[in-house]
Amino acid sequence: MAVVESRIRVRYAETDQMGIVYYANYLVWMEVGRVDYCKAHGFNYRDMERDDGAFLVVAEAECRYLAPAFFDDEVIIETRVTEARTRSIRFAYQMSSAGPDGTRGQLLATGSTNHVICGADRRPMRLPEKYRACFRVDPPA
Amino acid sequence: MAVVESRIRVRYAETDQMGIVYYANYLVWMEVGRVDYCKAHGFNYRDMERDDGAFLVVAEAECRYLAPAFFDDEVIIETRVTEARTRSIRFAYQMSSAGPDGTRGQLLATGSTNHVICGADRRPMRLPEKYRACFRVDPPA
Amino acid sequence: MAVVESRIRVRYAETDQMGIVYYANYLVWMEVGRVDYCKAHGFNYRDMERDDGAFLVVAEAECRYLAPAFFDDEVIIETRVTEARTRSIRFAYQMSSAGPDGTRGQLLATGSTNHVICGADRRPMRLPEKYRACFRVDPPA
Amino acid sequence: MAVVESRIRVRYAETDQMGIVYYANYLVWMEVGRVDYCKAHGFNYRDMERDDGAFLVVAEAECRYLAPAFFDDEVIIETRVTEARTRSIRFAYQMSSAGPDGTRGQLLATGSTNHVICGADRRPMRLPEKYRACFRVDPPA
Repeated sequence: MAVVESRIRVRYAETDQMGIVYYANYLVWMEVGRVDYCKAHGFNYRDMERDDGAFLVVAEAECRYLAPAFFDDEVIIETRVTEARTRSIRFAYQMSSAGPDGTRGQLLATGSTNHVICGADRRPMRLPEKYRACFRVDPPA
Repeated sequence: MAVVESRIRVRYAETDQMGIVYYANYLVWMEVGRVDYCKAHGFNYRDMERDDGAFLVVAEAECRYLAPAFFDDEVIIETRVTEARTRSIRFAYQMSSAGPDGTRGQLLATGSTNHVICGADRRPMRLPEKYRACFRVDPPA
Repeated sequence: MAVVESRIRVRYAETDQMGIVYYANYLVWMEVGRVDYCKAHGFNYRDMERDDGAFLVVAEAECRYLAPAFFDDEVIIETRVTEARTRSIRFAYQMSSAGPDGTRGQLLATGSTNHVICGADRRPMRLPEKYRACFRVDPPA
Repeated sequence: MAVVESRIRVRYAETDQMGIVYYANYLVWMEVGRVDYCKAHGFNYRDMERDDGAFLVVAEAECRYLAPAFFDDEVIIETRVTEARTRSIRFAYQMSSAGPDGTRGQLLATGSTNHVICGADRRPMRLPEKYRACFRVDPPA
């Protein structure tokens, strides 16, 4: 369960006139990875917001772009937790294109996001107890 | 005040690999036109949501694409109201490229959106009295 | 093969401060539906652009919004062809939320797009012969 | 000319269900800043792509989010060059909300992007001579 894998298909909307995926969209893919990470650890991020009033507010994001992604490529997003504190959580991501056989091909980008746990009032709060076990630091890939 | 004019500059993010603006982005530009329409009529749509709990929920949208828009083009959005009822409002839009001298050049697209006034609970409501004068049907362009 | 079904998961990025999916994103979902429609009919739209220099340029788009879509909802997009001419193609879409068992639940939106076949020079052209069989009018749903 | 200032108005489309601007959109605003930076230095990035076949391909991007941005806020983007090499350029950005009088208010975010100059074939190339003077390192803010 250390690393959670998501797959998305590149949309035409995500490309730009350079013929490749526009750089901001990788941060949307990281979000897809985080949401799947939560599901793989037993809960929906949606419910964490709705039922517990706990929001993962992004404090930092960074991405390194290694190779372009193209329209209709299948992209594999691998997400793991690299830091878990009572008030903040850091995720790391690897995005790769899927080869013709569906296995991980070329590495496209790596990135990370750091999140502060906030209440509905957008003030920092402690991660509710029941989620602590879900956000444990994963061993390195 | 019949027609309200907005101007935006095409972003690289809004283009796609065809080298032109991706079609969904015109609906975002219509939103820019609506927000400016409200301001030109004396109020902020933001305040209408926040202070009066009245939301313009989109019920229909349509767009006809006549000529492509390109990165870094200046686009003129002309917005007017074509129907104003106690529970719904229809806007029409003309989007044109600005010529080198800033005047309206080629017509790029026309469109319209129809909105139901809803409360924070997303149930239809009557447009609050104070906004009625703002949403009067404008004479045709 | 009359109707092709796609499934997407609503992204956080696709919501707006009303707590529902922003209206322009339905047009992106229609694109997902079109791309899958092509695949289900034996070819990749990507290859049609790359190998045959034929582009489906959007000439019209419209959408009726019947019920809001929410973050993390699974949305079923059903796509079919309603008009197929030598120089233009019209698609129709039904978007529904998937129920807990994965079957089609509430109807969220319906829409259509009309496309002119254009060359890389953005001038209208006839649909290459080999794609004609793929774009036949589907029987009504 | 050390720092170039851009101004944008937050769009409804850019918000998410947290009621604030979705984090990936700050990277789009950085693009607005870069494009304006080029104009303030005497050329259009659009022309650099079209006339000289030189593309600023993003290699790295990072952003620190300090305070949320809200719908309809006016945001001031300050852009400067912090590294200029023959094959790469680094930009830094400060994004602030504009106060009621239009002056710079609260700092919302800081970020940077690093770009490799590439040809239309997406292979690294040297920045064409005529642009060298435009991309000089600016003194710190």
